[in-house]
Amino acid sequence: MNSEDIHTSVPDPNKAIDRSIPDFPVAKEVDDNDYFTKNTPPTYIHEVVSKVKDFLQYHKANTFKKIALITSGGTTVPLENNTVRFIDNFSAGTRGSTSAEILLKNGYAVIFLYREFSLLPYSRHFSHNLHFLDYMKINSIDNKIEINDDHNDKMYKILLDYQKIKDSNSLLIIPFTTVNQYLFTLKSISTTLNTYGSKSLIYLAAAVSDFFIPVSKLPQHKIQSSVNNLSSNGQLIINLDPVPKFLKRIVDDWSNNSLIISFKLETDQNILINKAKLALKRYNHNLVIGNLLQTRKKEVVFVSKSSNESNQIDKNAQEKWFRLTDDQIKNNFEIEEIFLPEVIKLHDLWINKTN
Amino acid sequence: MNSEDIHTSVPDPNKAIDRSIPDFPVAKEVDDNDYFTKNTPPTYIHEVVSKVKDFLQYHKANTFKKIALITSGGTTVPLENNTVRFIDNFSAGTRGSTSAEILLKNGYAVIFLYREFSLLPYSRHFSHNLHFLDYMKINSIDNKIEINDDHNDKMYKILLDYQKIKDSNSLLIIPFTTVNQYLFTLKSISTTLNTYGSKSLIYLAAAVSDFFIPVSKLPQHKIQSSVNNLSSNGQLIINLDPVPKFLKRIVDDWSNNSLIISFKLETDQNILINKAKLALKRYNHNLVIGNLLQTRKKEVVFVSKSSNESNQIDKNAQEKWFRLTDDQIKNNFEIEEIFLPEVIKLHDLWINKTN
Repeated sequence: MNSEDIHTSVPDPNKAIDRSIPDFPVAKEVDDNDYFTKNTPPTYIHEVVSKVKDFLQYHKANTFKKIALITSGGTTVPLENNTVRFIDNFSAGTRGSTSAEILLKNGYAVIFLYREFSLLPYSRHFSHNLHFLDYMKINSIDNKIEINDDHNDKMYKILLDYQKIKDSNSLLIIPFTTVNQYLFTLKSISTTLNTYGSKSLIYLAAAVSDFFIPVSKLPQHKIQSSVNNLSSNGQLIINLDPVPKFLKRIVDDWSNNSLIISFKLETDQNILINKAKLALKRYNHNLVIGNLLQTRKKEVVFVSKSSNESNQIDKNAQEKWFRLTDDQIKNNFEIEEIFLPEVIKLHDLWINKTN
Repeated sequence: MNSEDIHTSVPDPNKAIDRSIPDFPVAKEVDDNDYFTKNTPPTYIHEVVSKVKDFLQYHKANTFKKIALITSGGTTVPLENNTVRFIDNFSAGTRGSTSAEILLKNGYAVIFLYREFSLLPYSRHFSHNLHFLDYMKINSIDNKIEINDDHNDKMYKILLDYQKIKDSNSLLIIPFTTVNQYLFTLKSISTTLNTYGSKSLIYLAAAVSDFFIPVSKLPQHKIQSSVNNLSSNGQLIINLDPVPKFLKRIVDDWSNNSLIISFKLETDQNILINKAKLALKRYNHNLVIGNLLQTRKKEVVFVSKSSNESNQIDKNAQEKWFRLTDDQIKNNFEIEEIFLPEVIKLHDLWINKTN
């Protein structure tokens, strides 16, 4: 696979930040500083920061591994303060948890910021497919619990990998549920990660809500289906505010030493590339990985700047597709195995440029 | 615990159905027949019906156990046809999965209609608390996978229970995700269950959306955060239609031989009892179990008709609270252990009345 052209497009971190106005019509920009003053951080945020600091310190002192912050799973938007109903973003966490395993295998340490109860690296091979207890049986001779023969070999292999990662303190797992918890936690972690320099990678695979209800507008109690909350024809109407475009803040302020990769998920292939180019132009980060809901496990597209670093990124950005072959699909390859080596190369180039 | 008064209030299944107008203001009623003609059944519905028929036939021929249909977990409401975003109802599935275990222990066969990936009976003791692989270790002597000492005894006990239930074909698990899948599946299962007569119990613990977007109004693709979908101040506005009140159809048409129990979850204790009474009056089923989000694991209230069977149910309905004592909380009792014996008594009384 020839990937020269994509290599040369890694932006120089010392280059002035492109703040030109995008050419696409976009929703009104939201002041994200405003977001962080008007909404309340999760109560456990100091605990998270302290865990991340310990993790970074450990690796700075002992391994100096590359570190990836991977976000995974969907954020929720509560529709009530005492939450009964919420808006959710579809994501089992497959992309994030698979990518985490591959980066760990390639020597990275990983901070895994994930939606609680979505897929985790290693356990993802089991937890969502089958009733937990169907993996086990009782040996009738010594009455000990054993793994069913069907699963024993696969589980053994994965358990070995997992224990190696645990023993080397290479995986830090941090959960979130709401978009508010996600935004505050992402801000804290990425700011802390910036101290690790260019050996840090930010890999934003989580499906983040574009809209939310500010805490000041949230009803205290469960929305009632009685007449007074409804329109005259019995409809419930929900008004949502846009979520601030935090990616800009990661690139500009929170973690400008890191290589930064975002994902763009669409269902309409006619707009995927343009949306990815637009994101790259607006946020000026390193790479957008585009994918369609329908084909996301078989193909993705890398959208990055072309080497001439023009402002007209929408015209000059380059695309590069990664696709599983029929043979690879038959042999249960995962698309992350195909495109992550390219991400690792981009990151190594980024590290070399800054040293 | 004296429960005479609640026993006497089980409605006579042969009694004419109360169709009087409720006294509370309510959202416009939706024609549910309309719902089932205007929306599309899930493609797998025939497979579900065939499984349920086999299950009923097996128990009719071999055990003639009482059978409970338990619904559990929250339904989703897709906001797009190619679903990226959806509205969800908060529910881990604790109430439903715990109740299933207790009914199974008490000799019931259980059809468990649950939100995919929410808690299941037996595995609920493990799956959501800890990384799957943290339960296991590799024995360094024979290289076999074993259960960690901390978990071995508990898991052994639960695995024994689970295997007994599996071996006796007492548990049929059927998943759903969207409210549309839920409604069509519930209709099919409860209609089939009606052939089992009064030995059937319908126990509606799922958290079902009150509002949805009809398939005819669903946008095909992911809602874009570009200007044309938004209000002038950048807000996204979502219009939702009320979900038809299917409970009336279960009681009147689909499964009028069954004892029928619904749940009412609120966050505001000032309205809980009245909402439960209203539901009982509107749907004329056997029992509403009320609970508050904040205290649902410690107390519930049974709201049933008083024995005089008056139309003024809102004035004459009776409440009975079940609460865990401090001692029970300390000893990890579950509230379902406290109130389900009462449900079983009600069901036995219902069976006796109809024989």
